[in-house]
Amino acid sequence: MTAHIHDLATADGRRLSPYCWAAKLALAHKGVSFETTPTRFIDIPSIGGGGFRTVPVTELGADRIGDSFDLALKLEEAHPDRPALFAGPGGVALTRFVGAHMAHVMGKIARVIAVDICAALDRENQTYFRTSREKMLGGRLEDVAADRAGGVAAVKDALKPLRIMLRGQPFIGGEDPFFADFLFAGVVQWTKIVGTVDFLEGEQAIADWFGRIEARYGAVLRATRG
Amino acid sequence: MTAHIHDLATADGRRLSPYCWAAKLALAHKGVSFETTPTRFIDIPSIGGGGFRTVPVTELGADRIGDSFDLALKLEEAHPDRPALFAGPGGVALTRFVGAHMAHVMGKIARVIAVDICAALDRENQTYFRTSREKMLGGRLEDVAADRAGGVAAVKDALKPLRIMLRGQPFIGGEDPFFADFLFAGVVQWTKIVGTVDFLEGEQAIADWFGRIEARYGAVLRATRG
Repeated sequence: MTAHIHDLATADGRRLSPYCWAAKLALAHKGVSFETTPTRFIDIPSIGGGGFRTVPVTELGADRIGDSFDLALKLEEAHPDRPALFAGPGGVALTRFVGAHMAHVMGKIARVIAVDICAALDRENQTYFRTSREKMLGGRLEDVAADRAGGVAAVKDALKPLRIMLRGQPFIGGEDPFFADFLFAGVVQWTKIVGTVDFLEGEQAIADWFGRIEARYGAVLRATRG
Repeated sequence: MTAHIHDLATADGRRLSPYCWAAKLALAHKGVSFETTPTRFIDIPSIGGGGFRTVPVTELGADRIGDSFDLALKLEEAHPDRPALFAGPGGVALTRFVGAHMAHVMGKIARVIAVDICAALDRENQTYFRTSREKMLGGRLEDVAADRAGGVAAVKDALKPLRIMLRGQPFIGGEDPFFADFLFAGVVQWTKIVGTVDFLEGEQAIADWFGRIEARYGAVLRATRG
């Protein structure tokens, strides 16, 4: 069975969404092959005839799944014999906390790079993106990004728990990566795809951890245009 | 078997340490009774003839355990049939992340209330506390605490992942509390014991979660002087 992902893309086809990257890494972790369709922000509401508001939307057998966490849960249920994404209900609950932390970090990164993401979209998508993100971030993209040094410092402060934890173990999942790792790896990949700020500068422990993800899933991460 | 905890205390006997509270909640969760000895900062190096630098130090049968996380691991191993603290090795790994996040939040709270904690110690302990904490926090306790509103805002920002997560489930552990919950509950209890700043003001979701912990472990949390 090959999964199919509607995968958020910039005007030049670069795959953008942290959550889409997390989904692709989760599929690879479970040994499920996948294809992708580049999808623009304004095309999301038409996927599968409508009803979806965010990506990834993943077609997996008869299912159409509109959330990366739900996809990971389905994969874990379908393939309990393959490498774990959660390792039990306790792992699912705790991964919700990591996911909340990842969203918190993402919000801080967005303040710095939303203006750069906007520049990488076509005109129609720029209008949608600017309107929705300025509402979300509470100001003009240019104004929110004006204090770049302050914005980067806030991101680095929010990364401290990941940095501390990596002193003691190679992955958030312990000896092997879990879906929690893929959530954060998706965020790092997102910043690399946008490419305007290197948030891992001076972050050796986090860079080394991302290197360990790349060592396992390099083929997935190198497919930056699908 | 009754455990014995060397439990950090202020000059008037109030039990202070977030990690001691986490240890006591973990013992109660596993149905292990315990006694405590109030212990001052400067007495920690003499516990059990020396060798310990932090509390809690817990005597459990033939073991003397110098770390709350290690205690929780021992309890889980000894009582796999009782309510879970981690629910498997994946849960242990992910709880390390929550623990790192809890330490991150604690550091931000310490900036605001370390000066108040200092005031609650006797003269000898004040000297130790001031010297060690001013080195840790990078300035005079009074200076670090000067911008109280800014300090509280930084704490509330760092609590965002917990706040987001609690929209979806009653405990960090899911339907029941895990050691991850007790780590954060210890921090809340610490701020209540110091009693100078109400960090849960306007934090209904977190206050409700702490209320659920109190509903289960009220007797433990009410024993503020052991």
